Amino acid sequence: MNQTAPTHLHHLDPNVSYFLGVDGGGTRTRVVLVDQAGTECARADGPPTLIDPADPAATVGVIADLCREAASKGGADLPVAGLWAGIAGAGTEPTRSVVETALREAGLSSLTSAGADAEATFYDAFPSGPGILLIAGTGSIALGRGADGSRLRVGGWGLHLGDEGSGYRIGMSALHAFARGEDGRGVSTELRDSVLKVLGLAGPGDLIKWIASAQKADVASLVPLIFEVAEAGDRAALTVIEEAVDELVGHVRTLVRRLEPWPATPEVALAGGLLKENRPLRVRMIRAIEVLPCRHQARVLDGARGACSLAMGLADLTDGSPAPWPEFLSGN
Amino acid sequence: MNQTAPTHLHHLDPNVSYFLGVDGGGTRTRVVLVDQAGTECARADGPPTLIDPADPAATVGVIADLCREAASKGGADLPVAGLWAGIAGAGTEPTRSVVETALREAGLSSLTSAGADAEATFYDAFPSGPGILLIAGTGSIALGRGADGSRLRVGGWGLHLGDEGSGYRIGMSALHAFARGEDGRGVSTELRDSVLKVLGLAGPGDLIKWIASAQKADVASLVPLIFEVAEAGDRAALTVIEEAVDELVGHVRTLVRRLEPWPATPEVALAGGLLKENRPLRVRMIRAIEVLPCRHQARVLDGARGACSLAMGLADLTDGSPAPWPEFLSGN
Repeated sequence: MNQTAPTHLHHLDPNVSYFLGVDGGGTRTRVVLVDQAGTECARADGPPTLIDPADPAATVGVIADLCREAASKGGADLPVAGLWAGIAGAGTEPTRSVVETALREAGLSSLTSAGADAEATFYDAFPSGPGILLIAGTGSIALGRGADGSRLRVGGWGLHLGDEGSGYRIGMSALHAFARGEDGRGVSTELRDSVLKVLGLAGPGDLIKWIASAQKADVASLVPLIFEVAEAGDRAALTVIEEAVDELVGHVRTLVRRLEPWPATPEVALAGGLLKENRPLRVRMIRAIEVLPCRHQARVLDGARGACSLAMGLADLTDGSPAPWPEFLSGN
Repeated sequence: MNQTAPTHLHHLDPNVSYFLGVDGGGTRTRVVLVDQAGTECARADGPPTLIDPADPAATVGVIADLCREAASKGGADLPVAGLWAGIAGAGTEPTRSVVETALREAGLSSLTSAGADAEATFYDAFPSGPGILLIAGTGSIALGRGADGSRLRVGGWGLHLGDEGSGYRIGMSALHAFARGEDGRGVSTELRDSVLKVLGLAGPGDLIKWIASAQKADVASLVPLIFEVAEAGDRAALTVIEEAVDELVGHVRTLVRRLEPWPATPEVALAGGLLKENRPLRVRMIRAIEVLPCRHQARVLDGARGACSLAMGLADLTDGSPAPWPEFLSGN
């Protein structure tokens, strides 16, 4: 809901500038409209905006509609003064440029830029100053900003080369443990029967067919089951989860080291489906990062608000296109 | 070359029975013709017979031509008394049945059966009695037969769920080490520059694009480079190779345990591109299995000869279709 109800004053005062922030992900898309004081004026929620690598501009239709909805609700005329769209998969070239061009052509804003959804979330957690954001959902990535303003990414290599500690990787590790247990190369595990049952498969051979056509999210969807089996004391499942925590801690530890010196204990924000409130991995992660030592930033993050901050920053730049986060690698 | 030159006697004596054995793999296809005494009469070599999962019978044309060539060279009339075709990817249903039916329709033999190429290699190494075969090429699998005749498979789960210790997995582990090193999450490694150079890539981001379209064999083709980097003392590359050896030893150790009791020290045969004569992994593996303790079977294996033994065995069975090796799982 709006933090500030729209008023006719906004609509009637041509001296107020508006900014749009977009957080587009695999689950849903959120658009927020703020005024030049950063006050939220309106919000629109919509379906996922998954980037189709074959046609990256295709997703822009949904985003443009949501932007028009938010502007209309908030009483802002288009084009607004700035738009920043964080979209899953738009952190790498040439996708970023294609999306940016399509957004510009939609006439939503005088100044328009696009980037990864992770960037938008980072700017909500840390609008300025040092900090580290760890995201673990279907994939995994960590971003950090040092005291001198330098920005670094670790992880984010995608499902083939990385995503350690992510839902995808936890699912794959569990399936590897399944295969080892079945052969007798590893400990036998309750994961076997549980996985076959939840996937509706008759036997291990069917798992090979299943995995051949499974998507990253299908594999990540096994995570709640794996936690359940681990909580019942299954050794293989527990090992899978412990390894995921170690991997995620490794992401944070690396950023802490590479961004030294820190003026105070580094602050770490957690985001992504695996690290949300009430998710079992969150408690483990908070405990693990606090012994690094780091401080945990407890507030709930909102990528669309971070995107608004970035949109407001666009107006301060002469070329209208700030450099994207350095070293973004994977479009996944 | 033929171990026994063909003679007109074979052709003129209707009382001689002939058998055909096929070893079809991703590199080449070999067909051998033997007489009822098991003596090799002729041989034909041809292109790879990779199973196309969408059309498993498509590969049968090449196999049938090679069978006709071997029969003609050896002076045997078709149909011969038995044909056994071991083909990579034909160890799982329904592929096995489709290939078998197509081979029968080709009229090559009165009794025809098909299975995995690994089965054929096993029967060459161990025509009878206990033994263990470890195959590590692009993928990995181990087969064993106990003193009581019971047969077991471990590994062979394919690239998504298994293939530990294989060329594919060594390549993937090296790429994971590359990503960790690049981030600073792992030790920095010479693998980075070497991999980029051999693949002709400008930077790490290009590796993500490369892997997205790489085949299993493309990844396995990095193995010689990884050994080279390891031999130059690179810690990450050395770790990748040590882990592969551990995985392969684990396959053998599991079969040794599961097939107990053994009447004498178990004999282990090695096959596949990674374990061929003069390959660096072979020496490490021989050393590792001898401390299990196992005995290494040193002779060079010939899957087509193993397939001939299986073809001769078909005539002893009333239904003409012996049970395939139990628990074959992956078509990879």
